[in-house]
Amino acid sequence: MAKVLITGAAGFLGRHCLELLVDEQHEVHVVTRSATLSARPNLHIHGVDLFEHAQVHELLRTVRPSHLLHLAWVTAPATYRDSLANLDWLAASVQLLRAFAENGGQRVVMAGSCAEYDWANGVCDETTTPLHPGSLYGICKNALREVLEGCAHCCEISAAWGRIFYLYGPGEHPDRFVSYVTRSLLAGRSARCSTGTQRRDYIYVKDAARAFAMLLFSSVAGPVNIGSGAAVEVATLAQTIGKLTGRPDLVLLGSAQPLSPEVPLVVSGQRRLGGELGWSPEFPLERGLTDTVAWWKQQLDR
Amino acid sequence: MAKVLITGAAGFLGRHCLELLVDEQHEVHVVTRSATLSARPNLHIHGVDLFEHAQVHELLRTVRPSHLLHLAWVTAPATYRDSLANLDWLAASVQLLRAFAENGGQRVVMAGSCAEYDWANGVCDETTTPLHPGSLYGICKNALREVLEGCAHCCEISAAWGRIFYLYGPGEHPDRFVSYVTRSLLAGRSARCSTGTQRRDYIYVKDAARAFAMLLFSSVAGPVNIGSGAAVEVATLAQTIGKLTGRPDLVLLGSAQPLSPEVPLVVSGQRRLGGELGWSPEFPLERGLTDTVAWWKQQLDR
Repeated sequence: MAKVLITGAAGFLGRHCLELLVDEQHEVHVVTRSATLSARPNLHIHGVDLFEHAQVHELLRTVRPSHLLHLAWVTAPATYRDSLANLDWLAASVQLLRAFAENGGQRVVMAGSCAEYDWANGVCDETTTPLHPGSLYGICKNALREVLEGCAHCCEISAAWGRIFYLYGPGEHPDRFVSYVTRSLLAGRSARCSTGTQRRDYIYVKDAARAFAMLLFSSVAGPVNIGSGAAVEVATLAQTIGKLTGRPDLVLLGSAQPLSPEVPLVVSGQRRLGGELGWSPEFPLERGLTDTVAWWKQQLDR
Repeated sequence: MAKVLITGAAGFLGRHCLELLVDEQHEVHVVTRSATLSARPNLHIHGVDLFEHAQVHELLRTVRPSHLLHLAWVTAPATYRDSLANLDWLAASVQLLRAFAENGGQRVVMAGSCAEYDWANGVCDETTTPLHPGSLYGICKNALREVLEGCAHCCEISAAWGRIFYLYGPGEHPDRFVSYVTRSLLAGRSARCSTGTQRRDYIYVKDAARAFAMLLFSSVAGPVNIGSGAAVEVATLAQTIGKLTGRPDLVLLGSAQPLSPEVPLVVSGQRRLGGELGWSPEFPLERGLTDTVAWWKQQLDR
């Protein structure tokens, strides 16, 4: 049984990771400022502010986790790409890493992003695709990865870096694309979409959480794509939500600008996640979207 | 007249930068924990701890510097390359940058290192030479550069990054190579050196300080080598000190391991510092070493 510290455990992805790790009977410690989590016999909640490094060092000295899963970061959809808060999260993450290394930490996994890659390449491979982050978010994530790898080398810690592609599922921020389309259609409002010819790698949040849990207890080191390996046209994605909600008429393709730079394809190579780690998705797109629609229906019926 | 904030102003390089900027009648603000600096009419000393981000934010809110010269970093010769203190300095630097950006900052220059380059290349050019830092120090410096460039782009701040080569001169840490050889020979002790066939780019500290001061008040952006552009055999360097101290017999070439990885050549390309900025050295090697020997003589005679 490992002693795991998770940050961002009250977040979209974190909640699902937390459930998996608690269910697996690890001793789980959570750093959160959120009051929505409640303790269980093997779940310990710490109200520590990750931006206060004295608090962080004290926590790590006390808990001495063997495993660290660091997911916390700024994610506000409208602003996260170029927010100066990315600098705060880089600084806080580096301090957390230092405290982990100094207090007996053995295995660390942190959340990166497909935003680190040069998107001109379409299929993103951890070893061969050049990196070229186009936002302060991607730059700070990539800088943290470099420091993580250097620190792991110096301190003989095992470290991996999960580059997350397009997450969706229950609990996602209401303004993100899948949430927005689903909420709109369920409320009988039209959903303004781009033409949607761009193809993206959408991964169901529970599949991504399982990938992170597997990665945390593996010895796979370095960057690992966390994506489904399948690219879907954004138009198809929206139309599938249209079909599942019974309101395909409300999906207005071509009436909005795309959310991300208009490159034709962003998809994760699966050499490491599938090949080395042995992960495969349990939720194909239509099943994931069905569960997402059902979840939003519940929320809106409340 | 600019309002300049300097960190590391009590350090080896910083002291010389400070003198230049104070002499140029700028309003100079210094962040230091050292008590060795004293205030002058246009020099303001702030006893702020750069690791306490609340203090840093408060300082920047109060002073609102137009220019920032950030030199402070861990430099202890025996340990700085792989010290976890590099992580603290990265975190502190990122917080300082954020506070500067949020409080009207216009121009920032930070100290990088030739340790960021892939040394397989010999001549290091800012644009064409690949980066491949081989130490946690180099990794953290390079990560800070990436964040600086991203932040400058987002916040419309002008930013440059001075990659320092081999500094030497009065006030250098006594355990660094030039200091060690000089002190040993002046004290009549032998100086154990490597065979010294490797060639390195040594730059006199006052020349480097002048390069930083010029860079700070230029609009040159991005990485700029701070080196002399001339490579000297380390054996020649030691033998010149032998000649200047009158004790060439005490220079024991081949009796120690080299301090840095044994690549044959590390020298700065001068396209940016010489070509774009118009800097050239005022202290050729023998003149710089003469002044260094004189300074150490004074210290030892006290």
